[in-house]
Amino acid sequence: MANEEPKTVTQQITMKGGDGPLSYAQNSSLQKEVVDATKAMIIRAIANNLDMDKFCSQSSSQTFRIADFGCSIGPNTIFSMQNIIQALEQKHHETNHGNSSTILEFQLFFNDHSSNDFNTLFKSIPPSWPYFVAGVPGSFYGRLFPKSSIHIGHSSNALQWLSKVPQEVVDCKSPAYNDGSIYCRGIEKEVTKAYVAQFEKDMESFLNGRGEELVNGGLMVILMGGVPNGIPLSHTAIGKFYDLFGSCLLDLTNKGLVNEEKVKSFNLPLYFPSAKEVKELIERNGRFSIESMNEITEQLKRGQPLPSTQNCISHVRAGFEGLIKDHFGAEIVDEFFACYANKHLQSGFVFGDNAVDNTLMFMILKRI
Amino acid sequence: MANEEPKTVTQQITMKGGDGPLSYAQNSSLQKEVVDATKAMIIRAIANNLDMDKFCSQSSSQTFRIADFGCSIGPNTIFSMQNIIQALEQKHHETNHGNSSTILEFQLFFNDHSSNDFNTLFKSIPPSWPYFVAGVPGSFYGRLFPKSSIHIGHSSNALQWLSKVPQEVVDCKSPAYNDGSIYCRGIEKEVTKAYVAQFEKDMESFLNGRGEELVNGGLMVILMGGVPNGIPLSHTAIGKFYDLFGSCLLDLTNKGLVNEEKVKSFNLPLYFPSAKEVKELIERNGRFSIESMNEITEQLKRGQPLPSTQNCISHVRAGFEGLIKDHFGAEIVDEFFACYANKHLQSGFVFGDNAVDNTLMFMILKRI
Repeated sequence: MANEEPKTVTQQITMKGGDGPLSYAQNSSLQKEVVDATKAMIIRAIANNLDMDKFCSQSSSQTFRIADFGCSIGPNTIFSMQNIIQALEQKHHETNHGNSSTILEFQLFFNDHSSNDFNTLFKSIPPSWPYFVAGVPGSFYGRLFPKSSIHIGHSSNALQWLSKVPQEVVDCKSPAYNDGSIYCRGIEKEVTKAYVAQFEKDMESFLNGRGEELVNGGLMVILMGGVPNGIPLSHTAIGKFYDLFGSCLLDLTNKGLVNEEKVKSFNLPLYFPSAKEVKELIERNGRFSIESMNEITEQLKRGQPLPSTQNCISHVRAGFEGLIKDHFGAEIVDEFFACYANKHLQSGFVFGDNAVDNTLMFMILKRI
Repeated sequence: MANEEPKTVTQQITMKGGDGPLSYAQNSSLQKEVVDATKAMIIRAIANNLDMDKFCSQSSSQTFRIADFGCSIGPNTIFSMQNIIQALEQKHHETNHGNSSTILEFQLFFNDHSSNDFNTLFKSIPPSWPYFVAGVPGSFYGRLFPKSSIHIGHSSNALQWLSKVPQEVVDCKSPAYNDGSIYCRGIEKEVTKAYVAQFEKDMESFLNGRGEELVNGGLMVILMGGVPNGIPLSHTAIGKFYDLFGSCLLDLTNKGLVNEEKVKSFNLPLYFPSAKEVKELIERNGRFSIESMNEITEQLKRGQPLPSTQNCISHVRAGFEGLIKDHFGAEIVDEFFACYANKHLQSGFVFGDNAVDNTLMFMILKRI
């Protein structure tokens, strides 16, 4: 069904809207580094993997339709789209279609949940952009576009977000109950099994949806968080961060500010897979060939200064405020992030500095 | 240029956002009556004027793309889209394409200025709607879509809004200075000439844009406010309303609440043409044939109760608050509409009851 969020209790995870000092728009520079680091890879991927002739001969129209799945509110989605367009124009020029009679038109679709702040996103689009733009509300785990209508799909830092928390992990009667933790640590067998099942189901939905929507030969550019093969999330920097995050909830419970039952029923709808897991899922699905797959964290971090602590704290709030608010109520948000900031400073915790590095998987898939 | 607002000082007229008691979403029942009244006409127009075979044979895809130009924030745009889809499905069924192997897909584009409240619009879309939806920010006096990508265009109560106030009418040194009035009364020759020139330019831009975007044989369904041939706006119900509206500004000036210069530089970016004028512009443009053109006010009003005074006042605020706020500042808004409500009640003014009726032009144009 088009534009339909999955029927079960689905969480609409969106980044903090607006453009104020706590907004995602002002606190996504970490993600921007990723966008910059992958720019050259996108240009190479499109140069090597896209059959421009095929699209140009398929139809008299020279329109390229590009969709960003899980775009949030910018500015990174703007940069990513710009990179893809640059890659397409370069490829077009190189394959000798660059004569004056064939001008490419680009239609860009920005997708995220209907609760995403599209108003802020639209206002951040450069007024002189010579492209056609549209915002598409809805979950990317369902269908969003007509059949064979998208040439390039893009998704950055979005696919590790599940459509929902697997219910067993917050059911204290279940063997998969995630006692004492708020995320999939990758240690407890039953908990992990439940999270993996949800992740597999969601990835399958994503691949099926995009499989319908992409034209034959179209490309999906995917960047998603992960773990090195065989390393549980709790041993990684992101795992350490979630431990700290979870400990704030316990502190607030001890202070009587948060109901204990509320904490017990809270888990993060996130799963960080290994490259091996993702590869197997894509192959099993069969709608896409894997043109390339890289794990890029190390390259990305080399030579880059770690973000400042304050920067780090602001990023965390921009990303997680909505989740805390939805589950625990708006009145607890400030207290929670004050606690988090405090702990973050006290612990001397630096994102990625005292644990195994997480991986960022960069994949180019082709619709077959 | 795609998605670009016209370069000159363009006014982004948008209806009041959100879904609160003063919002357009809650105060557009007058417009809803129009939507209901035109439903049968849309169904008939599509049945009579659309060559379904042509589209189905043109491409292997059965996607119909429908765009609403100047959609505002709902719910009327939702109803209008639903009516068009129903008309298309009915036509599809009747022309014997309704066999199970050819299922139509619909992609709906909601267009308005980037300052429109798309967040509220997206939240009002029925979650079970089996259509693909997208919001498209930008002025419909510029290009918004790729070439030949839209099958049905729709625009309701939008085209009487100009892209801007003609500068001469607020320039006290100009012979076209609109002394003592806030709108084009249709009496003062030079003022009218300036407004007409702006209207002609805007209509030309609109027709050129849609001419590029609609597929050959595609239809434009247009509903717009107007005046009977030969009747100046100041003699009509809408003219009387603007007179009342303008007198509030004078009152506020006399009270010292509004700067006199501000009032002098204020005019409404609105022009209500006659059917004759519109017909001539479309014919001169040459990109569309006029399949039908009706003036429907009389039919619409027959047997329908007039809206309550309070209802009327709320409608006025939903439609004009943004304009007053932009020009005179947020601090004056409450005072202004309190003054308006007061005058409205005192004068016993009932919309459309003490003047010549305005017309609503309902047109079906075909891209030739």
